Amino acid sequence: MAKRKSLKEDPCPVARCIDVVGDRWALLIIRDAFEGLRRFGEFQKSLGVAKNILSTRLRDLLHAGIMEIMPASDGSAYQEYVLTPKGRELFIVVLSLRQWGEGHLYQHGERCATLVDRKSGKTISRIELRTSDGELIALEDAVFKK
Amino acid sequence: MAKRKSLKEDPCPVARCIDVVGDRWALLIIRDAFEGLRRFGEFQKSLGVAKNILSTRLRDLLHAGIMEIMPASDGSAYQEYVLTPKGRELFIVVLSLRQWGEGHLYQHGERCATLVDRKSGKTISRIELRTSDGELIALEDAVFKK
Repeated sequence: MAKRKSLKEDPCPVARCIDVVGDRWALLIIRDAFEGLRRFGEFQKSLGVAKNILSTRLRDLLHAGIMEIMPASDGSAYQEYVLTPKGRELFIVVLSLRQWGEGHLYQHGERCATLVDRKSGKTISRIELRTSDGELIALEDAVFKK
Repeated sequence: MAKRKSLKEDPCPVARCIDVVGDRWALLIIRDAFEGLRRFGEFQKSLGVAKNILSTRLRDLLHAGIMEIMPASDGSAYQEYVLTPKGRELFIVVLSLRQWGEGHLYQHGERCATLVDRKSGKTISRIELRTSDGELIALEDAVFKK
């Protein structure tokens, strides 16, 4: 595959983010990491991806500061890949993909998972846009100030 | 490039969404469409992408119901690619990529765009998680109910 043009210096923050995570495998690895997978073999089994591709993607995610290597949580010799605080902030990206998928790619009647607050057990609302004083804004009314 | 395994029937809605939009070019085309680009040549110029790749990605986005073809807005013979309502609901995905990019891939002092309400001009808040009764939830407290 030809070397992709880097978008690291692109003036658009969306492009810079896509440069790092805009890849099928990277996104699936990040999703799996949020689901609690930590080991090379766990990611490989979950994704059915070739070892060389998985190695490259994990290396890129480490390099980007999205994941970090930790000693095995059970004291064994395995190394584990976990999301850094920067990586965990991609939760909203993964959640927005999930909500769009549930809304548009699920059949009526398929069961969707419910996001809840760990502490109170209360259901967390679908992502919405609000002004700083709490007013709900329709997507089509959100514009960037020139 | 080997044919990718489809994730269309994957039980995970994140995977189903990634199957459709989890691609660098698809995401950049969708970003450009939100910026108002509509014509093949406009996307090509913006992205610097090979025509055959752009054709394939646009065809996939049409097939997925994310974009649709419209007659040229100026009455010329060009065809235009515009987001469908289903495609426009990807705004939250693009916005979450943007906010993460602004937060983590921008240098201090680089200017970020401000999202405002078209009607009132009020600034729209960063995406947050709230319970249905409005309580703000930290990312690390959001869990899926088993």
